[in-house]
Amino acid sequence: MEVAIPLFDRFTALDAVGPYEVLSRLPGATVTFAAKSPGIQRTDNGMLAMEASVALSDIPAPDVLVVPGGFGTRALLEDEEMLGWVRQAHETSTWTTSVCTGSLLLAAAGLLDGMEATTHWAVRDKLEKLGARYVERRVVEQGKIVTAAGVSSGIDMGLVLAAKIAGDDVAQAIQLYIEYDPQPPFDSGSPAKAPPHVLDLAQRAGKTEQVPAS
Amino acid sequence: MEVAIPLFDRFTALDAVGPYEVLSRLPGATVTFAAKSPGIQRTDNGMLAMEASVALSDIPAPDVLVVPGGFGTRALLEDEEMLGWVRQAHETSTWTTSVCTGSLLLAAAGLLDGMEATTHWAVRDKLEKLGARYVERRVVEQGKIVTAAGVSSGIDMGLVLAAKIAGDDVAQAIQLYIEYDPQPPFDSGSPAKAPPHVLDLAQRAGKTEQVPAS
Repeated sequence: MEVAIPLFDRFTALDAVGPYEVLSRLPGATVTFAAKSPGIQRTDNGMLAMEASVALSDIPAPDVLVVPGGFGTRALLEDEEMLGWVRQAHETSTWTTSVCTGSLLLAAAGLLDGMEATTHWAVRDKLEKLGARYVERRVVEQGKIVTAAGVSSGIDMGLVLAAKIAGDDVAQAIQLYIEYDPQPPFDSGSPAKAPPHVLDLAQRAGKTEQVPAS
Repeated sequence: MEVAIPLFDRFTALDAVGPYEVLSRLPGATVTFAAKSPGIQRTDNGMLAMEASVALSDIPAPDVLVVPGGFGTRALLEDEEMLGWVRQAHETSTWTTSVCTGSLLLAAAGLLDGMEATTHWAVRDKLEKLGARYVERRVVEQGKIVTAAGVSSGIDMGLVLAAKIAGDDVAQAIQLYIEYDPQPPFDSGSPAKAPPHVLDLAQRAGKTEQVPAS
C-alpha cells in the first residue's frame, strides 16, 4: 500500500508527521513524501525542513493521499500543478484525506463541492467559500474522502484510517506502539473548550505563527 | 529562547516533531535541529528525512534540549560525541528533556542516575539498566529534567514545558492553535489499557517497525 504525502513551502510539520507515524506502521505500507520538485521543503516558521524524495508526477496513483496544511496552502489555491495532482490521484485512490488547511486544497481541486468537511477552526469560512460544508468534528468522513481538523488531529485520523485499512487490532497495536494515550495538561484544544482570552491569544498567533507574550 | 533538538540516523519523527510543534510557538522561541554533522537524517523506517541545519558543536548551550528517541538511540549509547554534547548542554540548560527512547541517551550520559524517568514502554528494562528508576507516567519531572513516554507523549510534554516557560495562558493558546483535543478511536494507548493480543501485536512490531498482519 502506497501512501503519498505532498509537501510544499510553509507546510505544518505535525500535519504530515502525525498520519505518517501511524500509516507507516501498517503491514506492507510505504509512505512517500513528494513535492512539485524533489528536495527540501520548509515548514511555516522556517525552522524545520523535510525532504520530498520524489516529484508529484512520480507518484500519480497512490492508494492513500494525505494532504497536510500550513500557511503555504494559501499560495496553492490556484496552483494547477498541485491541484491537478490531487484531482488525478483522487481518481484512483482508496482514500483521499487531508489534515488542517490541507482540506482547502481538496476543496480548491473541486473534491468537496457541497460535501461535509473539516479544517483548522481558524479557516472554517475559507473552506466554506471553496464550496464545502464545514462541520465541527475532528474527523469527517464522506465516502472515500476523510478530512481532519487542525494540526494534531491527523493522529486521530490516521488511526481511523488504519482501522479501515487493516482492522481494529492493527490500529490498536499502532496506537499502543506510538503510546497515544493523550494526557494534555489543559482542556483547551478546541474553540468550544478554551476560555475567551485563550481564543483571543490563539487568534493573534495566526499572524506571527507564535503566540504573543500574554 | 533557543530549543535544540538533536537528530541522528533512525530517529522517530513524531518524537521530535511533537515538541517542536508546541515549543516553536512560544513567544520568541527558536527551534534548531542539530546532528553530529549538518544535513539529512533519516527516520527509523527510512521513509522520512529531516534536515539538521547545524552541527551539535554549533549549539553547545541551548536553553532547552529535547532528545528524541528511535531505534537509532541504541547505536549512540556509547557515542561520546552525542553523549558529551548532551552532558555539556545540560550544564547550562533551563530544561533538559527527552521523548521515548531519548531518555536512554540522557541515562547513558549519566544524567538519570537514581532518578525517576520514563521512556517507551518496550524499553523500561533498558532504561533501568542504565541507572534510572522507570516510572509508568506519561511525563516525569525531576528538577529541570523532564522525560516523556513513547512517541506521541512529546506533545503532552511540550505543553507541560510551555506552561512552565510562558505560563498557562500561552500553553493553552498553543494547545488550541494546534487543535490538540485528542479523540483517538480506541483506548489502547498504554500497555495497561490494551488487550493482551494487541500488546502482543505491538511487541512484534518492534522487530520490523511495522505491525504484522493480524
